[in-house]
Amino acid sequence: MTTTPLSPTDRTTVSRGRNRMVADREELHRFLDVALVAHLGVLVGEHPLVLPAAFAVDVDGPDEGGSLYVHGSVAAGWLRQAAGATVCVTVTELDGLVAGRSAFHHSMNYRSAVVIGAARVVDDEAERAHALDLIVDHMIPGRAVTLRPSTRKELAATAVLAVPLHEASMKARAGGPVDEPSDVAAGVWGGHVPLRMVSDGAVSGEDSHDRVPADVVARAASYDGR
Amino acid sequence: MTTTPLSPTDRTTVSRGRNRMVADREELHRFLDVALVAHLGVLVGEHPLVLPAAFAVDVDGPDEGGSLYVHGSVAAGWLRQAAGATVCVTVTELDGLVAGRSAFHHSMNYRSAVVIGAARVVDDEAERAHALDLIVDHMIPGRAVTLRPSTRKELAATAVLAVPLHEASMKARAGGPVDEPSDVAAGVWGGHVPLRMVSDGAVSGEDSHDRVPADVVARAASYDGR
Repeated sequence: MTTTPLSPTDRTTVSRGRNRMVADREELHRFLDVALVAHLGVLVGEHPLVLPAAFAVDVDGPDEGGSLYVHGSVAAGWLRQAAGATVCVTVTELDGLVAGRSAFHHSMNYRSAVVIGAARVVDDEAERAHALDLIVDHMIPGRAVTLRPSTRKELAATAVLAVPLHEASMKARAGGPVDEPSDVAAGVWGGHVPLRMVSDGAVSGEDSHDRVPADVVARAASYDGR
Repeated sequence: MTTTPLSPTDRTTVSRGRNRMVADREELHRFLDVALVAHLGVLVGEHPLVLPAAFAVDVDGPDEGGSLYVHGSVAAGWLRQAAGATVCVTVTELDGLVAGRSAFHHSMNYRSAVVIGAARVVDDEAERAHALDLIVDHMIPGRAVTLRPSTRKELAATAVLAVPLHEASMKARAGGPVDEPSDVAAGVWGGHVPLRMVSDGAVSGEDSHDRVPADVVARAASYDGR
């Protein structure tokens, strides 16, 4: 684990809401470990395109600060546009709604990381296989090793992009509203509504006659912790 | 409600995964009504910046196809960059993890909408106040009318952007994995892990002595439906 401070450059330095800035790189890593959906911003022609993507992080990956991997179909246009270009990968988890005593102080509780860097197409076979395993294991820890090896055809159909984790920033907000003292004094109610993701357990496919594997059971159970 | 088909232009036409395309504009509206976090992509210098944002939709708003509103501090750099530029607003909700019988067929269940359009700074006072009310009510339905009016200072500190809903696409995936017949025949387990957001109820602020308002109680309860 590196301990480089976050926001090493201007373009990932938090300028608004510094009170919500997270300056600890290990906290960034922990967050990217639990969050599952990235929003990848790519310049397509003259405008940005933002698409949701599965991802995984290898903090010891070959890119500066570690590697953030996303994958997609080799036929996807955005992947071709992203190759070699500067992209933005933003990962956000919603943690709650903040019901302030005024419209102005309404907010959301969240954690959000922004990573900006040059996207590298992963050509090396070993790194690509490793990245794809990481993406599967990010979704369901321990699962990759239980699966058959990917075929040549499957690997040929999949493109992997790596983005350096070096330029990153993270913000987080938690707890209740920060209201005007006059609204508090007036006795108006303020508070927040915490939200969390749960699972009601794994659902076996119609043609699945085996028991649900332990890795999948554990993953579903991981969402029920409070 | 308009019933224009989705994806009226090339740049929001779904090219990959057409089987996951949602072609119904009313379904887009319903989704944008329940999802709370947008990811706004703005071109900043030569690269895209993607930031999470609260939003709301007015299907009868003045922009083509209706208006999607985001707000932020007038001091935020991205807001100045977005004014008049083509932006991308992507809204995604994660609905589950798809544990395929091979790495290749792992996926996630989700709903995601992509809106591309020229961002307009909302200058009209009445439209701005309406948009801010919509954003509060999107988070907690019925709340805006219970709050004191915003002060001039609060309004002056808040910028609102409108993006036309005209150019939009939506994709959704649900259910179990679509696996190779050979993996199914081999008896390998496949399935999925549904996920949903819940709330354990509203938390009153330390200085809140009133009861939790009905709108907030109802909002928290809305997350517990299965």
